[in-house]
Formats: sequence, C-alpha cells, structure tokens
Amino acid sequence: MSVLIQNGRIVTAVDDYVADVFIEGEKVSLIGKNLKVAADKVIDATNRLVLPGGIDPHTHFDMPFGGTVSADDFASGTKAAAFGGTTCIIDFAVQTKGQSTLQALDVWHGKAQGKATIDYAFHMIVTDMPDERLPEMRRLADEGITSYKLFMAYPGALYVDDGTLYRAFRQAGENGTRICMHAENGIVIDEIIKAAVKDGKTEPKWHALTRPTRMEAEGVHRAISIAEVAQVPLYIVHLSSSDALEEVKRGRARGVDVIAETCPQYLFLDQSYYEREGFEGAKWVMTPALRERWNQDELWQGLKFRDLETIATDHCPFCFKDQKELGKSSFTKIPNGAPGVENRMSLVYNGGVVSGRISLNRFVELTSTAAAKAFGLFPKKGTIAVGSDADIVIFDPDRKETISVNNPHTHHMRVDYSAYEGFVVQGFTETVLSRGRVLIEKNELKTEGGGQFVKRALCNALLR
Amino acid sequence: MSVLIQNGRIVTAVDDYVADVFIEGEKVSLIGKNLKVAADKVIDATNRLVLPGGIDPHTHFDMPFGGTVSADDFASGTKAAAFGGTTCIIDFAVQTKGQSTLQALDVWHGKAQGKATIDYAFHMIVTDMPDERLPEMRRLADEGITSYKLFMAYPGALYVDDGTLYRAFRQAGENGTRICMHAENGIVIDEIIKAAVKDGKTEPKWHALTRPTRMEAEGVHRAISIAEVAQVPLYIVHLSSSDALEEVKRGRARGVDVIAETCPQYLFLDQSYYEREGFEGAKWVMTPALRERWNQDELWQGLKFRDLETIATDHCPFCFKDQKELGKSSFTKIPNGAPGVENRMSLVYNGGVVSGRISLNRFVELTSTAAAKAFGLFPKKGTIAVGSDADIVIFDPDRKETISVNNPHTHHMRVDYSAYEGFVVQGFTETVLSRGRVLIEKNELKTEGGGQFVKRALCNALLR
Amino acid sequence: MSVLIQNGRIVTAVDDYVADVFIEGEKVSLIGKNLKVAADKVIDATNRLVLPGGIDPHTHFDMPFGGTVSADDFASGTKAAAFGGTTCIIDFAVQTKGQSTLQALDVWHGKAQGKATIDYAFHMIVTDMPDERLPEMRRLADEGITSYKLFMAYPGALYVDDGTLYRAFRQAGENGTRICMHAENGIVIDEIIKAAVKDGKTEPKWHALTRPTRMEAEGVHRAISIAEVAQVPLYIVHLSSSDALEEVKRGRARGVDVIAETCPQYLFLDQSYYEREGFEGAKWVMTPALRERWNQDELWQGLKFRDLETIATDHCPFCFKDQKELGKSSFTKIPNGAPGVENRMSLVYNGGVVSGRISLNRFVELTSTAAAKAFGLFPKKGTIAVGSDADIVIFDPDRKETISVNNPHTHHMRVDYSAYEGFVVQGFTETVLSRGRVLIEKNELKTEGGGQFVKRALCNALLR
Amino acid sequence: MSVLIQNGRIVTAVDDYVADVFIEGEKVSLIGKNLKVAADKVIDATNRLVLPGGIDPHTHFDMPFGGTVSADDFASGTKAAAFGGTTCIIDFAVQTKGQSTLQALDVWHGKAQGKATIDYAFHMIVTDMPDERLPEMRRLADEGITSYKLFMAYPGALYVDDGTLYRAFRQAGENGTRICMHAENGIVIDEIIKAAVKDGKTEPKWHALTRPTRMEAEGVHRAISIAEVAQVPLYIVHLSSSDALEEVKRGRARGVDVIAETCPQYLFLDQSYYEREGFEGAKWVMTPALRERWNQDELWQGLKFRDLETIATDHCPFCFKDQKELGKSSFTKIPNGAPGVENRMSLVYNGGVVSGRISLNRFVELTSTAAAKAFGLFPKKGTIAVGSDADIVIFDPDRKETISVNNPHTHHMRVDYSAYEGFVVQGFTETVLSRGRVLIEKNELKTEGGGQFVKRALCNALLR
Repeated sequence: MSVLIQNGRIVTAVDDYVADVFIEGEKVSLIGKNLKVAADKVIDATNRLVLPGGIDPHTHFDMPFGGTVSADDFASGTKAAAFGGTTCIIDFAVQTKGQSTLQALDVWHGKAQGKATIDYAFHMIVTDMPDERLPEMRRLADEGITSYKLFMAYPGALYVDDGTLYRAFRQAGENGTRICMHAENGIVIDEIIKAAVKDGKTEPKWHALTRPTRMEAEGVHRAISIAEVAQVPLYIVHLSSSDALEEVKRGRARGVDVIAETCPQYLFLDQSYYEREGFEGAKWVMTPALRERWNQDELWQGLKFRDLETIATDHCPFCFKDQKELGKSSFTKIPNGAPGVENRMSLVYNGGVVSGRISLNRFVELTSTAAAKAFGLFPKKGTIAVGSDADIVIFDPDRKETISVNNPHTHHMRVDYSAYEGFVVQGFTETVLSRGRVLIEKNELKTEGGGQFVKRALCNALLR
Repeated sequence: MSVLIQNGRIVTAVDDYVADVFIEGEKVSLIGKNLKVAADKVIDATNRLVLPGGIDPHTHFDMPFGGTVSADDFASGTKAAAFGGTTCIIDFAVQTKGQSTLQALDVWHGKAQGKATIDYAFHMIVTDMPDERLPEMRRLADEGITSYKLFMAYPGALYVDDGTLYRAFRQAGENGTRICMHAENGIVIDEIIKAAVKDGKTEPKWHALTRPTRMEAEGVHRAISIAEVAQVPLYIVHLSSSDALEEVKRGRARGVDVIAETCPQYLFLDQSYYEREGFEGAKWVMTPALRERWNQDELWQGLKFRDLETIATDHCPFCFKDQKELGKSSFTKIPNGAPGVENRMSLVYNGGVVSGRISLNRFVELTSTAAAKAFGLFPKKGTIAVGSDADIVIFDPDRKETISVNNPHTHHMRVDYSAYEGFVVQGFTETVLSRGRVLIEKNELKTEGGGQFVKRALCNALLR
Repeated sequence: MSVLIQNGRIVTAVDDYVADVFIEGEKVSLIGKNLKVAADKVIDATNRLVLPGGIDPHTHFDMPFGGTVSADDFASGTKAAAFGGTTCIIDFAVQTKGQSTLQALDVWHGKAQGKATIDYAFHMIVTDMPDERLPEMRRLADEGITSYKLFMAYPGALYVDDGTLYRAFRQAGENGTRICMHAENGIVIDEIIKAAVKDGKTEPKWHALTRPTRMEAEGVHRAISIAEVAQVPLYIVHLSSSDALEEVKRGRARGVDVIAETCPQYLFLDQSYYEREGFEGAKWVMTPALRERWNQDELWQGLKFRDLETIATDHCPFCFKDQKELGKSSFTKIPNGAPGVENRMSLVYNGGVVSGRISLNRFVELTSTAAAKAFGLFPKKGTIAVGSDADIVIFDPDRKETISVNNPHTHHMRVDYSAYEGFVVQGFTETVLSRGRVLIEKNELKTEGGGQFVKRALCNALLR
Repeated sequence: MSVLIQNGRIVTAVDDYVADVFIEGEKVSLIGKNLKVAADKVIDATNRLVLPGGIDPHTHFDMPFGGTVSADDFASGTKAAAFGGTTCIIDFAVQTKGQSTLQALDVWHGKAQGKATIDYAFHMIVTDMPDERLPEMRRLADEGITSYKLFMAYPGALYVDDGTLYRAFRQAGENGTRICMHAENGIVIDEIIKAAVKDGKTEPKWHALTRPTRMEAEGVHRAISIAEVAQVPLYIVHLSSSDALEEVKRGRARGVDVIAETCPQYLFLDQSYYEREGFEGAKWVMTPALRERWNQDELWQGLKFRDLETIATDHCPFCFKDQKELGKSSFTKIPNGAPGVENRMSLVYNGGVVSGRISLNRFVELTSTAAAKAFGLFPKKGTIAVGSDADIVIFDPDRKETISVNNPHTHHMRVDYSAYEGFVVQGFTETVLSRGRVLIEKNELKTEGGGQFVKRALCNALLR
C-alpha cells in the first residue's frame, strides 16, 4: 500500500515548506517537489497543513478511579483522539500496592490490545517500590516502558512518600529512564479538605478552594530537589499555576533537567467555572483544579520560553450523569477528571497560533515532537521525515467549528458533556494517517482498530 | 539589694553610650551620667562594654537522645552559659508520641527546677498532634510556652508528617504563637544513609555526605510554604547552608513571616573537620552537618541583611568517650550534637565585631535582643532599659583567650572536649548579673542556682 | 535650663517602657522611674508616647527649580516640620556645573543660617565632577557634609553621566561617605516625553505615563551595579515602585551595601490622582510620579523586610496658583514636587502602626533612627538615650485630625494646597523639644529660630 | 547542474535520519531512501553527517578599527569560513557619525561584491540616529538589512547614548526588525581604564581587569529594560559571563523577547591567557574580555536551557606582528579582536557533542538554524529541506585535527596566529556545498568566489 500526499504545506517543529510526501507501507519514503510516483492512493493537500500526528502523552482510558471507571476505553478513546488529529497516546498502567509492575503492565496490555485505533504506549504508575521490586524497573524498560509516574497527591490511594520517590528516582536515573510527577502536597491538602468538610463546605467549588497553588508549587519544588539529588530527568505533569511554574524556572536556573507539561484546561478554563449554578461545576472537578484566570498568561509565557515543553490533555472523562453525580453530597466524592483528548489540537492551534502567541513550528513541537523526544518515541513518531512512521494529519487552518457535545464533528468521546462547550475554534483536522493507514478522510472514519503498542526507547534528554 | 555599674559603655541593639546603670532589686531603675546614688554594691565598668545578657534560644540540657543523655544538665549547663555571658536560655521540653504536652512540660520543669543558675524558658517539641490534643496548645501558651518545635528530620523518632505540621501550624497561628522548624527532608536522607551503610560507608564523614544541603533547602522551602498557607510566623532553627538560606530569602521576598537562626558551628567550622584522623570527626557529628567552607560567607551575608536574625548554639553535648564512641561501628549510631553554650558570645564578638563583619549593635541584637523579641521575652529580657530585668554582662572587648577544654576560663561545660579547641578569641565576659544578682564577678562564680522559669508572652512579630 | 518629662511611654527603635526623662541643657542626662529631681520645667506625658524627634533626610527648602523657587524657605519649612514632629532635616545644597561644591555649600549655609527653627544638615548635590574637583569631596566631609546626591534624571539640568557617577562613587567610597541616588533613566524618559508632547499629550497625567517604572528600576539597577564596582555604600532616594524595589532586593541578595528610602506619597497616593478634573492633577506632579495603587503593598513589604529603611518626604512645595500653573500648557513645565514635611509622622503612624503594618519600634526606626544612622547623625540624634540631644516629641497616639490646607493644626507649610487633603489620621504630635528647648507645647509654637547646622560624622554603615 | 548526496546521516535542528539528498540547481529538490535519479555529480556520504551549512551571524571582515583594518577581507575570510563548514555569514556595515546608513551599506557592498565565496548578509551598525534619519531604517529593511547593531561600549567611537538607543529601538520594533546590542557600560569602563593607565597598569592583562563582568551585566540589563519599554526583539551579541547571562534569564522570566549569542572564545578560553609571557596575551585582547574559567559552565547551561541561542565567532582578526603590536606600550592601543571563523564548527562539535553537553540537533540549531530564524534567513538557509538552498556540509564526526596556524587543514585565515593553537578537536568538515556548488571536496577548494548577498526577510520571532 502506498499513499501520495500532494502539494501540502509541511510543517515540523523546525521546517515549513510546500512539497509532496510519498508513503510506502508504514513509513515516509520520499519528500520532494512534484513527485512523479505511482501511488495506491493520492491525497490532495493543497491549502492544507501537513503535520506530524499529534502525540498526547497523558490520557487515562479505562481507568478505575473513585469507585467508577473513566468513561472512554481504548476503543472509544483512541477513535476520538484520531478525529482530533492525535495519532499516538501514552496512557498509564497502574500498579496497585503490593502488585508487580509487570503484572500491572499485563493488565493494561489486556485493556488496549485489539481495541485501539491509533498507536499507544504506557507510562507505569508506581504506588510502592520496596527494594526487592527495584529490578523490575529495568525489566519494564526492556518492555518499552521507559517512564514512571508517581503521585505526591491522593494519600491512601496513589500517594507515595518521599522515601519511595527517592528510591524510584535513583533507579530510574540509573536506567536512563524518566520520572513523571503529579506534584501537589496531597497530605496537607487532605488536612485542608477535612477542615472544609467539617465546616460544611461541600459544593464543587471547594475542590478548588482546598487546593492552593502554593501546595502545587511545594510539590514541584520538592520533586525537583529530590530529582536533583537522585540525578534523574524529571517531567512535571499537568502544571496548572504560575506559582508552580516559578519553581520549574528556578530548578532549571540552577541546572536541573526538568521540563513540564500543561493542559488545555489550564490554558483556556479558569476557577470561575466552579461558580456555575447548582452542581454543574462538577464537570470541571479535576486535579489540579482550575486556577484564577491570570495564571493563563504565565503559562503561555512558560510555553514560549520552554519551561513548559508539552501540552497533554490528562483526558480522564466521567459522565456528568451517574458518575460526576456520585459527588452530589460532597466534592470529595466527585470522580476527578474531564474529557479533552479530541479537542487538544484545535484548541491549541486556535488559542496559540491564530492568536499569535506561538508559531506554527512551536505548535507542532508542543503537540507532538517534544513528547516524542521526551519519551523515547522519536524519530519513529513526532516528525515528518524520511524513515519515520507515516503518522500524518492534514489540517485545515481556516475551518471553524464550535466545540459541543452536540456537534458530530467535535465530539466522539464517550461522555455526556464537553468541557469546552461553545468554544469556537479555527483550525481543524481533516484527514488522518497512522503508519500509512488512512484512519479518517475528510472527517469520516475509514479504518477502525489496528493501533499497536509502541515499545519506547530510553528517554532522550530533551534538554541538550 | 542594689547595684551601681559605673562608667561602662552601654550597648543595646540600637544605642551606644557611656553612663551609669543603677539596679534596684531585680530591675534596672535608673540610667544616667555620674549617678549619685547609694548602692549595696558598686562595679566599675570603665573601658568595658555593658551588654544585655546573652539569650541562647536553642539548648538541649538533660536531653535523652540515641540511647544516651546529653552531658550537661540544667545545673552544669546554665553555669557554663553564665560564664560565657548568657543569662537566659530557651530549652526544649519533649513530648513523646501519645503523651500529653502538658505532662511533657511537667517532666522538663522537674529537670530544671532548683538546678538552674540563670533564667530559662521552654519551647515544646511536638511529635504528634491528633485533633483532640490541639486544645493543649492554647493551654501551653497560658503556661508561658508560646512556641513549638517540629521535626522534618529523624523519622521514627521526632519526625512528624506534613499533615501534623499543617494542623499544628494552623493552631499555633490562631493562638498567636510561633513555630520552630528543624527543616531537613529526613525521609530522603534516611534513604541516602541506608544506601551508604549498605556500601560500607560508615566513618563519621558519611554523616555529612549523606545529608546534602539540597535536602535542608527542601525542608526550609516546604516549611515556609506550609506556614504561608497556615498563616503562622515561622522560625527556622540552625540554618546551616547557602542553599537553605536562599529559600528563606525567597519566602520573605513573597512576604512570608519567616526568620532564621544560625549557630557558631556553621559560621566557624566546616566539613573538613570530618576528615580528621580516626574517629575524631565524631566530635562534630551534629545535625545539620557542617558544610563546605564557602557557605560561611553566605551566612554572614544573611546576618547582615537580616534573613538570619539570631545566633543560637544548639548546645547538645556528648562526651567523646563512651558517648560519641557509641557510634564507632557506624556514624548512624553517633549521638548527634556538640557543646557550645559557653563559647557563643566570644566567638561571635571575635568573628563578627572584631572582624568588621557586623556592628556592635547588631552583635547585641543577634545574641540577645532578637531572640527576646521573637520569643516573647522582651522587654523583660534582651535590652538594658529602665524597668527591664537586670540581666547584664560586663564584657572586656580587648581580652584574648584560647578556647580549650583545658582552659579553666573557657570550659565549664560537662563534656570532655571542645568543639572550638585552639580558637583564639578577642572579647571576653568578665562579670555577669542575672536579675540583679551577681553570678560571676571578674570570672569567678559568686552565686549558684536561683535561675527561674520565665513564662513567655505571645510571640511578638519580629517582622514589622 | 532643665526639663523633666514625666511618666511617658518611651519608645525607641528597640525599647518600649514607661519612665521619666530628665534633660539638662541640650542633652538627656537621666532616665528612670519616678525621678526626684528639680527641673526648670516639668511636662506630664502620661498616656503619651515619648519619641525621638523625627528626622526627615530629604527636603528641598528655598530650592530653585524650573524657573521658580520651592515655596518654603528654611524659616517656614522648619517651623512646619516642627509642628509635625520632625526635629531635624537634611536638605540639599546644589552645586551648579562648573561651581565649586564648597561655594555651593556657602550659598546654602546662607539660606539657612539664622532662619531655621530645628536643626539641619546638608547633602551635596553634585552636577559635575572633573578630576580636579575630587579633592573637594574630602574637604566637604570635614565640613560635615558626608553624603552626596547625584541624578540620573533631568538631563540638561541636574543629570550626570555614568562616568561622573563612577568617579564620584569611587571618591565617596574612599572617603567613608555615602551616595544618594535619584535613580531613573532620564535620558530615555526624555525621549518618551518628546514623543508624547509631539503627539499633543500635554495634560498632567502624561507626567506619569511618560515615566515607566521600568526606567526607575533600570536606574536603580545601574546605580547599584556601579556602586558595587566602585565600592561605596548606596542610598536610593524616593523609591516609588515595586519594579525598583525588586532591584534593591537583588542587589542586597548579592551582597551590595544598598538601602532605600520611600516617601508617604508613594505609600498613600497613587496614579489615579492625575485623573482629577482639569489641571488639578498638577498638584501631584513630582518625580518619580505616583504609581499604580498595587505598588503600595509591595513598598510596605519592603519596609517590613528592611529593603526600605527610611521614610522621607522629598518635600518640595510649589503653590498651585502661579507656580504649578506655569505648566498649564504642558506637563513638562510644571515644577516637580509636592509638600509633606509637616504630615509625615502622622501619616506613617496612622497608615503603619494603627493599621498594624509596622510595629511602634519600626515606626521610630523608619522616621528617625535609621536616617540618623545612615547619615552620621547618630547617636546625637535618632534616639532617646543618656547623652543624646534632647530632640523629643510627645505624641498623642489617640488624637485624630483631618489633614487639610484649612486645618490650622495640620498645615503650617507656605503652600496653597495639601497633598493629603481630607486624609483622617490618628496619632498626632503635641509637644516638641529640640536640644532641650521647647519649640511647641500642646500644639502651640513657643520658640522660633535657634536651629543649628549639624556637622555629620562619616556615614555609619547601616548594614552590619 | 545536479548533485546527489548518498547515504548520509542527515541532521537538522530536529531530525536525524539516513537518506539521500538530491539537489537540482541551487536547491534541495528531493529527499528519500535509495534515490534512483540521474545526477551530474554523486557524493558518497556513508558514515558522514550531512548538516545544514553553518551560519556565523557575527563577523568583521575588512573592518577599520583602532587605526588599522581587520586582517581578513571578504575574499580570504569567506574562504576560511567555507573550509570550516560555514556557508553564510552576517557581517556588519558600519555607519559613521553623520553618514547615511544607506551610503554605509553601499560601502560594504563594495567591499564584498565579487570577492565572497559563500553567501553573506549585513547587519547595520548605527552610530547616530537623529530623527530625520529614522525613515532610513525602513528603507534598509527593504534592502534586506533587517537588524541593527548598537554599542554601549567604545565611547568616542561606536558608542551611542540611551536616547539614541531608545529612538532606534522604537523604530526597529515598529518595522518588525531586530536589535543587536554590544552590552557593556563603556562609559564606566573608560573611567576604570583611565585610572589603571594612570597607575601604570598597561600590560595586556589589564584589558580584562578593567572590564568587570558586572559592567557587562549592567549593559545587558539596561538594554533589556529599554527594549521592554520600546517593544523590540533584542539580541545580545557575544555574551561572555555568568553575571550577564543572569540578566538575560531575568528579562525572559518577566516576558521580554530577548535571546543571546555567545562565542567559542567564551566557551573554551579564559582569563588566564592574559597571563602568558611578555606581550603574548595581546592575541586574546578582544571585547568582552576573556573571563574567569568558571563562567564557561554557566554558559553551557545557558545553551542547554536556551537563554543562549546562537554561537557566533565575532571573528575580527589582527596579526600579532604589526597589528597587535600597535599596543605594546599600552593595552588600550591593542586592536580588539581575534580570529575564529574557520574553527567554530569543530570547536563546538568537539566541546559540545563529543563531550555530551549538547545533542547533535542542538549543535545544528546553535551553529545554523537559530541564527537563520533570528535574522530572517530561514527557510532559505539553516535547514536541509525540500526547497531550501543547498548549503550543505558533509562532516566527518570521527576525524581529529590539531588546530594550529601551521596546520594547513585548520588555518586558511589571513592572520599570523591561531587563538586555539594546539586544541585537538574531533569532528571535521570534509565537503561543503553552497547553493549546490561544491566549494570544497574532501578538504580541497574546488570553487572560489560566487558568494551572493542575501536580502533578509523581517526577523522571525525566534521566541514563539
């Protein structure tokens, strides 16, 4: 099978030119002007951007949480991702306390295998790490799991103490792998929550008011300090606030190898959403919580100056009905998370490129290339180059859509609301290829399934 | 009983003038030139400094630690302090897990009562703080215990987790009291120690090499962040390194009410002491450990710019023989601590004033006034003013002594070595009064005992 | 002549106690409880604060500027100061280009001599400094002029270039004297002004809009950098903005001996005053300009953490009628300056102590002691201590007044408006002594004239 | 004419893959695996890196300075550059006071035309900017001169005052062009020099000792502050010290669009070179001066974290004999500058990539792509992509050479010494193409001349 994409404007994290791309089998084999080659399929990309497929390094499909399970599984979630221009996700396998991480990996392989439409990889969430299990980390790396996520939040559930952090950091550093951190002081936050609940403060907005940005910043500072001593490259997930960003900047200023991810919700939504009538604020109960609006400008600055290197979704959807409603009596029982995997590319293109905040090259870097480089997927993924996987998005830079749970172009996620309901975006995915297979053509699904697990290489130092 | 001190150069944290001081009973009643008053005792202070008695806000007399007990009790310790020009100490009562803090206070009252030669007060070390015990904190304040110390170090012993910190901080803030923090990430340090011991690294120097300054800085940053959220004035004890000082500066730069204490050992000694032959390095095994020499300049800068506000000793002596030797097989078993309560004033005068690093007024502030203000002893203690306690030191600015365990002028502490052996200091205490009683006259002990417990007021905000 | 002040609450920068003060001749000779001494005059200070007389280190009496002369001369100005509780000012002698600084000093001696009611000293404003005049600086020091002011602002008038700055800094440092800086990039500001005027932007508010805080911060950073290389203690006058304060903090963080002064106008007034109807904004045309309101909180933080050490007035009054009106056609012709020497103590007491932002001791330090120490007036001035000048203010902490040009208690300045019209202040000066002479008693003027020039000592390093 | 480069490892600022590159005429037309195309010339690049030609954005060929002229003209200089793997330079046209910048451009066109072997562009050095000449700046942009350089150093020669800076910055910002700054406080430095010379300090080392890094940092801070107010993108040339870098970081932390360039001399040489015997230190008399060695690590950190974005040479060679010797009597007469245009790529590859400090992609970005993007040369230059100029370097990553004036492979510059004499480097240029012409093949010159002036586009915002 071969595909010829003609006359598109090819944009990578660095380049920007008009040419044809020829795909043989799963890979790009030729790039040139006016290619004269025979192809099984020809796609005209005139007036379209030809972009590396999006990589979302932070999703939670089929994830048990708070007594329920996230609403998208690997089938529905990866299809929705594809519609939004994302051709690879990195999800999280979850080890439970006492369980082998290798067993945990098997469980997650089981959830994904045969269901995914796009390619996928896993980080491993570690919830304990006794000395005897440290050797597993190296075996995981051999299995293509070259990054680990640990939580300073959620005591009693995913939380691990600083000793576990240190042991895991040390081992990860020695193995040439990378640590992802959920950095918030969950222990202090739990005390604040207890006091609030005791005072009868149980509406959704208290989710935000009990998680001060200072406690996110504290977690970031602590994670960076421990990483510095343990000598491991660090990746802060879902950074949400100016206070936290400041700590990333300081760590880098003294030379620590730390980068951070933010998410569309922190760039486009804010704390005022919790003030919506009745229980509606529950839709945006996620962790970290939405912040005061002024933080958004600081995050965009962080993206510009590269203290923030990736934009992921932390897609973790729960239906408003039945799932979010579990927390009607108290915000502490609302499952944490919101949908977004489908909307990321358009939101960032519109809010970043159309608004003039970031360049087109930086858009590609933030939505694809940087994640590929940070997590050992490059050059297989994250670029358009001879020899790379033909994960390609043909993107219409002019088309406008209104994001809505009711708009069939913007909502294929299996959840009953949109976090961005009513947002008008310019810039929309039209056609999507994954390893040369045409998944979506002119917004219609052509291929379902066929996504593969990707063994990741050791993590490239993004900083160098 | 009345005393007239004639013709001395009276120096407070602000003033500097020559006059006579008249003491009636326990208090200063009159200051003037050439006072014509009848006095029971007249002391000529010509060519001498007349200073507020030193206040050492950090001592550990009769303190159980590591299977032994600190070598000075309240009898020997307060006498040695008096010889060195210190007329008030704040020691630490220690609550053990599950014990009432009020009971703990009783235990410490029992250790001190009837034994002390100078006045004394207590901070309360808190090792747990379940909700039901929070009300005790207010009762302690009524008993004159208006500051609490918590430990981020020593897991399994004095360590408390961040949740306990937060609860105690909140309560202390509401009560108008102050928190003292031993700020080091003991959990991570324990991991580093375990790894070192496993590798056979057990000599005294590994005490320092397993406690990186970054982990002190992390503790300081975390304590400040939690204090900021809990709204309590914070006091960092025994700050030892530039990295940690940097965090104090940053907290203050964003408006947090935090000050810090350093100690002579961090100003005058350094990590190279651990390299001494054989087991001798054990003499300086204390926590935090001695640091690389360049940190000293940074600490002096901190004293100059007031990010560091007090100089205490953390006097916690263990004899080299039998006590320090408990750790011959491994540094982890060496009792942590070193003597110093007797040498503080001369060391700081010599290294600070004689060296031109600090002014005479600042010397008084650092060794006496600031501690009095920070801990609710002012204006009873910490100044020479009408109505204040006549705690007065007559100090010879020119006299030189060589500090030595063998010099009868410099060593009254009940411990078999000096941490400053061989240091030549200029500036030496000659005569000492405590509430009008002449304890020491021309370096001879005149009065023993008579020290009283001082109920402290709510903590003045030093910062305002 | 002797005076006994009975039963007042004596407050210095450190102390706070109730006692009697006995004054013989010009100096305090005795402090004690219930003094039994014969006195020519007895003043009952029960329920009153007894404070060191205020020191205002920044006034401009009888100062030629912009084609006119400041409205207060040394007679009217020092009387108004006395009414407000200020017993010493440091004014500025102005050297004109090519003139000897010693001649300039003579001119200013002529303006003050025989006219002043309170004591006064001079800084020397230097407008050029060719090599041959450098030796004058040492002679000025011998004459008691131990600080020099230079301007980065006002090109064509007071401005000096960086080369002159460096030469003067070096010489001042070698002499043990201090540099005062008006730190604003006047050269760039002039360009901004020219462009504004060209665009017809001539209303008073453009005075503020053409002087961005970034250009103040730039001046502060540059002055500190040059002082660091030249090794001279630096004093930034009239610091007005958070941006500028940030540079002071950074300089200190790397160890430079720099402190700064702010003024009541920057603590209590803001940029919105320029929006007043018609030409009224001209009343607040001063340099630096009033800033956005949020800066005020940052300045109070600076006062708390001691990056700001003094509060002066920069009193430089011009009548609205005839003087300010010179600039009706363009803000560039409005004489720069505003009145305030009389209102400083009450404004700062009310806004600082009554509001709980600073302690009573810090109030004394900021309004008197720190200036005395910074500029070689201590211990003659700036404290209440045996042997010091009896410059004493008896202050009613409860009395309220409304500041107004029409209130005979608050306005003795020779200017036709008040910058603080309508401000209600709690805390008011009642009785004022200067070197033992009762100038004002219960708000009535008792003595006029008699103020003396004070030769200042070399500048104490305030920082140590 | 067509060229086929086979089987090389193609590395851009982002990509890294093995493929063939086909060049038709001046441009790359096809990239693919095993291309089957007929070519006039085939080059085997097996085991070689195929890199975008180096861009050196800071050279001074045929430049009058200090009574002499830099030793390389556009003929010799561009040939040497080509040997070193650089295929485009940006030199500086110099406007003299009172001269039209358009005339100045003509002069420099005259110097280059017909002589250059590689392509070249010009920045315009501006030495005055009266209002009437501001419109010239837009005309220059139309001529392809889209960046201006101004000097804070060299008073009396190239120095301009802050007013001129501001006017030029404003205009440049409005035009969409970029400002390059030589940021050092030349005015203060001149005073320091005068004092040194007066004291007889005239040896070469005094060049460094009279230019403190604080004065470089001051210039950087000032330039950034003015750029912030004037709203123009800023580029700091030849940043040499940690102090200066710190100011770049701070500017960026508050959101200013500033990037900086450093040079191999600041990364590999240090202040100790001035201590060489006799007059030899004169070889390294350049501005800024070489710094203390520890600064190098900080600069590498800056390159890693992107506060430093380009590495240029500031190539400005003067022969030791006759030229440098002009300053035998005093360092002030030594022509400032050193050679380097030929050695940049190997030095940075060896010290950066071989040493593991930077990645291969970052090497390409620092030596080529970033300069192309910052200065409007991209995508014509700075990458290997379909449609871009075929400016290509075939680089042997393993070959070692010893840099020496006597090594015919490393020294084609017309100057009688090497600044890096004796440095052994791994990684060496083998074959060089400029717009498809083979200039050098296997280290032999094949084509001379033919370099063209490149009109640059408006400056892309590198930061976005």
